[in-house]
Amino acid sequence: MVSFKNDYSEGAHPRILDALFRSNFEQTEGYGGDPYSIKAAGQLKQWIGRNDIDIHFLTGGTQTNLIALSAFLRPHEAIIAPNTGHILVHETGAIEATGHKIISVEVSDGKLNSTHIETVLAMHTDEHMVKPKLVFISNPTEIGSIYTKEDLEQISRVCTMKNLFLYVDGARLGSALSSLENDVEITDLARLADAFYIGGTKNGALIGEALVICRDALKEDFRFHMKQKGALLAKGRLLGIQFLELFTDNLYFDLAKHANAMAALLKNAIADSGYSFLTHSPTNQIFPILPNWLITTLQEKYSFYIWSKIDDDHSVIRLVTSWATKEESIEAFIKDLKTVAEQRTDQ
Amino acid sequence: MVSFKNDYSEGAHPRILDALFRSNFEQTEGYGGDPYSIKAAGQLKQWIGRNDIDIHFLTGGTQTNLIALSAFLRPHEAIIAPNTGHILVHETGAIEATGHKIISVEVSDGKLNSTHIETVLAMHTDEHMVKPKLVFISNPTEIGSIYTKEDLEQISRVCTMKNLFLYVDGARLGSALSSLENDVEITDLARLADAFYIGGTKNGALIGEALVICRDALKEDFRFHMKQKGALLAKGRLLGIQFLELFTDNLYFDLAKHANAMAALLKNAIADSGYSFLTHSPTNQIFPILPNWLITTLQEKYSFYIWSKIDDDHSVIRLVTSWATKEESIEAFIKDLKTVAEQRTDQ
Amino acid sequence: MVSFKNDYSEGAHPRILDALFRSNFEQTEGYGGDPYSIKAAGQLKQWIGRNDIDIHFLTGGTQTNLIALSAFLRPHEAIIAPNTGHILVHETGAIEATGHKIISVEVSDGKLNSTHIETVLAMHTDEHMVKPKLVFISNPTEIGSIYTKEDLEQISRVCTMKNLFLYVDGARLGSALSSLENDVEITDLARLADAFYIGGTKNGALIGEALVICRDALKEDFRFHMKQKGALLAKGRLLGIQFLELFTDNLYFDLAKHANAMAALLKNAIADSGYSFLTHSPTNQIFPILPNWLITTLQEKYSFYIWSKIDDDHSVIRLVTSWATKEESIEAFIKDLKTVAEQRTDQ
Amino acid sequence: MVSFKNDYSEGAHPRILDALFRSNFEQTEGYGGDPYSIKAAGQLKQWIGRNDIDIHFLTGGTQTNLIALSAFLRPHEAIIAPNTGHILVHETGAIEATGHKIISVEVSDGKLNSTHIETVLAMHTDEHMVKPKLVFISNPTEIGSIYTKEDLEQISRVCTMKNLFLYVDGARLGSALSSLENDVEITDLARLADAFYIGGTKNGALIGEALVICRDALKEDFRFHMKQKGALLAKGRLLGIQFLELFTDNLYFDLAKHANAMAALLKNAIADSGYSFLTHSPTNQIFPILPNWLITTLQEKYSFYIWSKIDDDHSVIRLVTSWATKEESIEAFIKDLKTVAEQRTDQ
Repeated sequence: MVSFKNDYSEGAHPRILDALFRSNFEQTEGYGGDPYSIKAAGQLKQWIGRNDIDIHFLTGGTQTNLIALSAFLRPHEAIIAPNTGHILVHETGAIEATGHKIISVEVSDGKLNSTHIETVLAMHTDEHMVKPKLVFISNPTEIGSIYTKEDLEQISRVCTMKNLFLYVDGARLGSALSSLENDVEITDLARLADAFYIGGTKNGALIGEALVICRDALKEDFRFHMKQKGALLAKGRLLGIQFLELFTDNLYFDLAKHANAMAALLKNAIADSGYSFLTHSPTNQIFPILPNWLITTLQEKYSFYIWSKIDDDHSVIRLVTSWATKEESIEAFIKDLKTVAEQRTDQ
Repeated sequence: MVSFKNDYSEGAHPRILDALFRSNFEQTEGYGGDPYSIKAAGQLKQWIGRNDIDIHFLTGGTQTNLIALSAFLRPHEAIIAPNTGHILVHETGAIEATGHKIISVEVSDGKLNSTHIETVLAMHTDEHMVKPKLVFISNPTEIGSIYTKEDLEQISRVCTMKNLFLYVDGARLGSALSSLENDVEITDLARLADAFYIGGTKNGALIGEALVICRDALKEDFRFHMKQKGALLAKGRLLGIQFLELFTDNLYFDLAKHANAMAALLKNAIADSGYSFLTHSPTNQIFPILPNWLITTLQEKYSFYIWSKIDDDHSVIRLVTSWATKEESIEAFIKDLKTVAEQRTDQ
Repeated sequence: MVSFKNDYSEGAHPRILDALFRSNFEQTEGYGGDPYSIKAAGQLKQWIGRNDIDIHFLTGGTQTNLIALSAFLRPHEAIIAPNTGHILVHETGAIEATGHKIISVEVSDGKLNSTHIETVLAMHTDEHMVKPKLVFISNPTEIGSIYTKEDLEQISRVCTMKNLFLYVDGARLGSALSSLENDVEITDLARLADAFYIGGTKNGALIGEALVICRDALKEDFRFHMKQKGALLAKGRLLGIQFLELFTDNLYFDLAKHANAMAALLKNAIADSGYSFLTHSPTNQIFPILPNWLITTLQEKYSFYIWSKIDDDHSVIRLVTSWATKEESIEAFIKDLKTVAEQRTDQ
Repeated sequence: MVSFKNDYSEGAHPRILDALFRSNFEQTEGYGGDPYSIKAAGQLKQWIGRNDIDIHFLTGGTQTNLIALSAFLRPHEAIIAPNTGHILVHETGAIEATGHKIISVEVSDGKLNSTHIETVLAMHTDEHMVKPKLVFISNPTEIGSIYTKEDLEQISRVCTMKNLFLYVDGARLGSALSSLENDVEITDLARLADAFYIGGTKNGALIGEALVICRDALKEDFRFHMKQKGALLAKGRLLGIQFLELFTDNLYFDLAKHANAMAALLKNAIADSGYSFLTHSPTNQIFPILPNWLITTLQEKYSFYIWSKIDDDHSVIRLVTSWATKEESIEAFIKDLKTVAEQRTDQ
């Protein structure tokens, strides 16, 4: 059975495994003090075009979010996030477990805007309520949409004006930046956000995320927080080697482009068949609304998540593609979809 | 320069990398639901001889300690640990960061005993003090010594009597169990401890520890705690594949025996040269007390940690061997040690 | 200026101050071990009709909520509460600061029901989300409504079936139990809830809430949690003496009835004048919807909170009465309201 | 039976109760916004001779310590304290429960010095250990000794040099400042410490401590932390009224002087009888070392704590005097002590 359940079903891109092999017997410093991690950080800084930023390698998205946010905030400070935000939904209260409240904002397309932020601020006026201090967004969002440069400029403007931090969860950042509809450069992101992370796990790495801290005030002692939360790997090189390889010869973007292209094929075919989508997604996750009978039939040969119920007869499913998705799997899915749909029409 | 700084200077044992390669393109469930993790857990249960235990794979020792201890304890409950305990010294307050106090007991050989525990209990009598609830020990200890079966029986007895949990940090458990002086079987450990972990990172894995929970009351909902603390890897297979390989054909023990043998060679040579040790260590870490001039000379060709100062002229150094330590490196070190020592005697 | 801002604008009922005076020079044990606290607890148990409950005296509602909830829950367990719940709105993230997420349920009348609870449970299915474990309600609610016995029976039923704890915030419990519309006996509350508290601060005490723990599993070591959170008063007698007096000769209920009666006078007069209310409140807080011009005029002589905006011309205000509210203040307010309203009609 | 167990056995000084009575029916703002709290803060600022300090009223020592320390520190920062420190011994891990480690320093007289601090700093060098950031001392110490001005100057110097905060627990500050051996002015304390608190509960108040924050960087948003930890009393006036009275007409110091004088009488008589003391105490707590038979006899008429065991025949007891201690009780105790001692000598 072919899986469209997520973008972490396989191991790593072969070049990454090769890189681990090549370096295997070299003795290096532990805890990220190895030459690979150092070089990888330098390479990322060069790509981002800034020397005055800090790079830290971590093992997963929830870990990165919880360490960064708890390091950045004082105990009474809270986070503003769209209701679809990963930290609100699928991190088992990881942020609250560090003591911070997340203020949820109802959105329809996964995207927060400056009006949402101002509305929250207007309601939090004194010490009987938490103090909103950090804006959390994901790019792409958890439902596949992306922020435009103008979106980010507006959010950043209100953050600057109101003295809030802006943090971007980039679990699938490669997919956003490689999207055909994207107009955000990495330099824009580093200029507008106070911190963000570059996801590796969902774009070809075995494991690993690179946290980028842009604002000086947030950099101090960050490695203490990593160690305290159990995130400083003894063999930190495992992360450095992978990011070094991912950002050599454009591998990271080639992988993301492939994932996006595979999703676009699916999306176009589904639209051609007359179905609509939960939201507009130009990235590697799409959310078609399908009749339940079609879903049931497709499930016989493909695995994917049922995202939500629309009505008694229709549901949203999530189809995720990745660097490892084969074009032949996509073609097979499309063919099956069309065949099934036609048969039904016949009856 | 040859490093005796630690047992995580290299990558992984080649068989582990091979196993990652072989499985790379298989699509599996995420978060440890993959067949490798499931099989690895089953294999460990078989080795331990118990089906009624839970196995969880995590990425490092600090992470394992902090998640297990905070999951096991209620907010007012505290931990009793020897003052050398890793959680007291080198985990950046990770346990306290989860809200729990660690009661430190001064010991000389790294080992806690039942008298220590009873003394602590006698001093904690009411709600103005924390309630001691869990005994933390490491086997081998952080200074290389090991617990005998009788040691563990005694500790376990007082724990049972006083309703305390017994937790064993096994970052280097392979080295303890493979030590020539060891009389503890893994079945003893599982019978006497409520939970313990089997260290992979320091014995040939790229990354990974296997937490074993033996007491029923501590098992419930453990995966929630893992996710909440950022420890549930999307590609959980990375850990399962490694442990599966480590516990196939005795690899885990072969590696530990090699590390121990290399340390024994060093230890005997150093003792032959007339030097003494901080404590008796039959495992892969030894702590010779050397004159400072000798240390300085050795540092020209070998890297290692200076552990502590003895007097103005002598210090304790830590020499760590591993599965990857080459016998020729040991021979070279011994030869250099003897040469330098003789030269000095001549003068 | 007369204040209808809250029910804690004055000091304490004179009988309470007298009781403090009478006992002042007696030497007693500290930390609640004094004879007054012990006697007050016994008296409450008698009123509640149960000997198998634990009573603890604390200094305020937020303190009581945060200590009880964090003592009752394991780290990954969450709370279900209506969106108006005090813990969600006006406690500065006190619950999240202890590590627990609160799942907010949108309600219109301040009241949670069993369907709400089941809906939340249906959405929380695995370890990627928190585990709902405790239902938080307030009686009366933060907007003055009360739960009927049948309401509580239904909630309790789903809690029992789904293994959830039921906790009732009784900051104004006296007002609920004394309401003319109330059909809940204190014995019902103790039978249906696992824990609740009896508010003193808002019903005549200088300071103090009495937490009642009904479920055995939640009782153990509770005083440790109180001490750890800074709530064990050296002069614990301050709380015991007050509760002893409040529950002597029905004082607690006489005070609550007076507050309710004063609110009813206000409510009837406002309704007579043709205005409606945010919700139905048979307790000591009412929330009339008034035209803004009327609010502005009333603010010249009376202080109260503007609760929320309805439209450009109307707002909800909150009027709170208490044991100390004078009937002449109510009459004056009513007279002013009618005069102002008539003048406006004339124009 | 007369109690020398502590200085919080009685209620409040009558002038305090009178002040509560006088103000009882006045309607005031809640949460410390009342005129009494505001006036009391102003009065304290005047006494301290500084307008640029913040004053907050809290209900007890543990509460004050835990809120201040957790507000002042980032998650990885730790506290240095003498092993006798109240936060280390008798606060049920309240500080650790907020996530911070306390580094204990062994001292004999309850007092920390600059060498202790420098030794701790020398051992904490990287992110594998916590970062020491705040020095906690108590004046008087938990065993009755006091810091001289020179002591505080030295500690403050190392704190300034090493960028540490200095915090002084003043649960019995009145007794220290009123001691015949004291040379520390309140202005010295405010100059040398970054924050300290002025204890009310143990010097005549019903309840209450006044936290003084001197360093600008520690002031921001402090009321949020108070509310989040359940310390913002609805009837905040209860604290303001008491402090206003305590610092009117020198009441606070008169009470402390009385307590000290009573302790001095006890101390001199015990010394006259040939007994020695655990440490030198010029304040209201003394710790004589007595033969066990004498202790047993005294316990028939007086209650006090047995502090620690010296040998099989001798123990240290703690005798505490207060504003409420009657001179006749002291005389009776002394007479009984001498009588018993003589009888024994006769035999």
